[in-house]
Amino acid sequence: MDSKDGLHFDPESGVREGIPCEGVIVPSTLESNPATFYDAIVIGAGYSGLIATRDLVVRGHKVLLLEARDRIGGRTWTSVIEGYPYEMGGTWMHWGQPHVWTELSRYNLVDQLEDSAETLPGVDFKISYFFEHGRNDLSAKDDAQNMNVALTEFCNVDGHLGKTVFPFPHKPFTEAENYAKWDQVSAAERFDQIKDRLTPDQQSLLLSVIVTASGAPADQVACTEILRWWALAGYNSQAYMDYIIKWKLKCGQTGLALCIFRDALVSGNLSYRFSSPVQQIDQARQHVLVTTKDGQRISAQYLVCTVPLNTLNDISFNPPLSHRKALAASRGQVNLCVKAHAEVEGRDHRCWWGLAYSHKSGIMAGAFGDGLTPSGNAHLVSFSVNDAFTSGSDHGFSQMKAAYEAFHPFKIKRLLYHPWATDPYAKGTWAMYAPGFGSRFKRDLQASQGRVHFASADWADAWHGFIDGAMEQGMRASAEIIEELRKVPNARL
Amino acid sequence: MDSKDGLHFDPESGVREGIPCEGVIVPSTLESNPATFYDAIVIGAGYSGLIATRDLVVRGHKVLLLEARDRIGGRTWTSVIEGYPYEMGGTWMHWGQPHVWTELSRYNLVDQLEDSAETLPGVDFKISYFFEHGRNDLSAKDDAQNMNVALTEFCNVDGHLGKTVFPFPHKPFTEAENYAKWDQVSAAERFDQIKDRLTPDQQSLLLSVIVTASGAPADQVACTEILRWWALAGYNSQAYMDYIIKWKLKCGQTGLALCIFRDALVSGNLSYRFSSPVQQIDQARQHVLVTTKDGQRISAQYLVCTVPLNTLNDISFNPPLSHRKALAASRGQVNLCVKAHAEVEGRDHRCWWGLAYSHKSGIMAGAFGDGLTPSGNAHLVSFSVNDAFTSGSDHGFSQMKAAYEAFHPFKIKRLLYHPWATDPYAKGTWAMYAPGFGSRFKRDLQASQGRVHFASADWADAWHGFIDGAMEQGMRASAEIIEELRKVPNARL
Repeated sequence: MDSKDGLHFDPESGVREGIPCEGVIVPSTLESNPATFYDAIVIGAGYSGLIATRDLVVRGHKVLLLEARDRIGGRTWTSVIEGYPYEMGGTWMHWGQPHVWTELSRYNLVDQLEDSAETLPGVDFKISYFFEHGRNDLSAKDDAQNMNVALTEFCNVDGHLGKTVFPFPHKPFTEAENYAKWDQVSAAERFDQIKDRLTPDQQSLLLSVIVTASGAPADQVACTEILRWWALAGYNSQAYMDYIIKWKLKCGQTGLALCIFRDALVSGNLSYRFSSPVQQIDQARQHVLVTTKDGQRISAQYLVCTVPLNTLNDISFNPPLSHRKALAASRGQVNLCVKAHAEVEGRDHRCWWGLAYSHKSGIMAGAFGDGLTPSGNAHLVSFSVNDAFTSGSDHGFSQMKAAYEAFHPFKIKRLLYHPWATDPYAKGTWAMYAPGFGSRFKRDLQASQGRVHFASADWADAWHGFIDGAMEQGMRASAEIIEELRKVPNARL
Repeated sequence: MDSKDGLHFDPESGVREGIPCEGVIVPSTLESNPATFYDAIVIGAGYSGLIATRDLVVRGHKVLLLEARDRIGGRTWTSVIEGYPYEMGGTWMHWGQPHVWTELSRYNLVDQLEDSAETLPGVDFKISYFFEHGRNDLSAKDDAQNMNVALTEFCNVDGHLGKTVFPFPHKPFTEAENYAKWDQVSAAERFDQIKDRLTPDQQSLLLSVIVTASGAPADQVACTEILRWWALAGYNSQAYMDYIIKWKLKCGQTGLALCIFRDALVSGNLSYRFSSPVQQIDQARQHVLVTTKDGQRISAQYLVCTVPLNTLNDISFNPPLSHRKALAASRGQVNLCVKAHAEVEGRDHRCWWGLAYSHKSGIMAGAFGDGLTPSGNAHLVSFSVNDAFTSGSDHGFSQMKAAYEAFHPFKIKRLLYHPWATDPYAKGTWAMYAPGFGSRFKRDLQASQGRVHFASADWADAWHGFIDGAMEQGMRASAEIIEELRKVPNARL
């Protein structure tokens, strides 16, 4: 089944809009009785909404899941093309990300894990730097050493590896004053503080890593965003890489999402409507009323709103969003990363990473060997921040092709990507915050308003912007609603 | 409420058997209808049994929870004395232990975490070595450096920090041959291989760490058991300590266990019997029949048996346990650690670790400042392997007192401990394996037999012997039974 989401290019057929996804749900609507007064409505079938929905329905609560797209997964979804899974959004996980790992364990998917940077027999892992001061090929070990020096210098803001800022990174406000202080500093400003201690290669590598992590120029993102990943991974550059870009699923993220969705479905308590964007949310003392864009009205006791930060102001809330929530949403998160996939002829670049940085535009920050397709070709995944890669009549594919070819004269068999920045239901990629944003707004974004709970990866306590953060938020919202529903026996009647 | 478990000594009152525990369940039996044919019986109300029970009952399945003790928690329980929580068994957790962290997140207990090694204002953390070659006081930094050198040498069995043995420690059999090879080597043999590269202090420190981790002499435990912890913590000595002995709960582990138990209870689907040890388990094609020691017989569709490895052969199974399960249970796990608590006058030793090693017996391997009691005294927790600490008319308290006083002339206000090694429902402390045991038996121990699922921390895939391993096992057993029950609609009727 094709989703309407995703863009695909190959030299023979050109550009195609919409690509396969096993997470497209057919029939798109399942509703036993349209007049049902639900225990809860969940808006959004990404991981936050899926976890919230499952946790509610398995406990016997009646839930309506509303989703604007034709598929589950939100900003995490897999397109399987010619038998090979391409992750269009969220990809990697680690056992130190507890919420998602517990779901892998529950659905017996731990055996599905594979290492993105796996070596092939007889093939050495190779790294190439494409920096303004020159090109350099080096071993994985030397690159790791550069990464260790550069990232440690960057994150060691306090002579204690950042531990006085995030001593307990799962509670980001443990040292709120130190967090607020460093949160004002952009990644570019922090870079300027330490750049003299780095070699030119280490400097450019660090800028490439910042841009790849942030999906934004270094002056637009808070240095605490990088520091947060570092702290969550144990204040260690090797662990940082292991958490961020190592373990992915052979069955694809959509494989996991389907396990959760099916688990909810067989409870018999799940109703859903796909391709149903929400227009308005009205709240009264005893219920919540949702109006969809096609004019349908549905009521429930509680509501879980999981829409991303950058789209929160697109729904009309009555009473309105709190001033600070609305302000935070209008500021938004800054990540406009273009994550793209290439299938290139031959397996030579399976075990290869290319890292780039230039003050000029039109450069990819990095492209990484991520697998071998069934045809024996290398699959590369790339990260860029560049409008040119998504605009124009060919959706930027010619620009993207040229950018890949700047790394190497690849023979490109296909290119594909999801334009998250222009997607009306995302308006950005994984959440990364501007200087001052997190310390100022995160707690406001987490707060519920009456019967409406807000649960998005974009403001998770720990791994915000990650799969784990989505699940953290979905689980907590449902846990609160489960407690509230316990106080009102037979409230449905 | 006092549990029958636990032993307490203070100089005024002498020895007392039984200490307070908020996890004692009253009334001890809750059963709506004794003739009920349950969906599942769960044997054991430790974390494995609690998670399995909760996951089943919240989904509407009828469960009978059978527990030999008067309390929940199994080998993890808290005694609150004069307002201070003493952890009698399992204590520490980390966000890299995904199953337990997800439960903390679910029940909103992340704010309850505190650091066992927290410093006091104006008090430096101090370490004292009590080794045969001499006594040495040093800074926490110098101790950490010794630990890093010694543990890295020990675990770097392959020149790759052990990564060729446990490349993916949550799947211990990923490199089964390498695991089997190193699993034959005892910790003592591995120590002999690398001791020449260590200073005398580093040598004794390493032996102290091995004994503290294993609850057994170094020749009785496989070197892969230490290597496993090292790998799970990210192949890093600082992270190893952070995972093993850092984060504990202000509300006590029993606080978390009660959240899970109450969550199960309010479902209305939970029946239970405490103080009801099991005699026999008979399995027929369509059901399982459990006979308790007091002669009661209860039937269910499925059974989850969570009793510890060293007690598995104390239940009569019909048909019998598989040959390899029975063999593994007769070999048993080797950990006979005595974990004891002391309240000592004054706060001087709040921020202090004493580490000892001697080839003579009667020495504690370590005592650690773990908190300040409401009276302003230091709470020390100690780890020993010594029969003398639990035997004799005073349950070893005079020996234990002398061992503490060998560290420092403490004024001891109270001592308390749980004699896990002689406890008939444990027969050992957290599971640690002898050389060759894990590679040979772990998969056998995990296998279900017909309608009987075996779920104990003692054979968890990842953190065996830990709270996380218990929850991993309980969750997986219930997930399998949930799947099986789905195939038989209305099976209860």
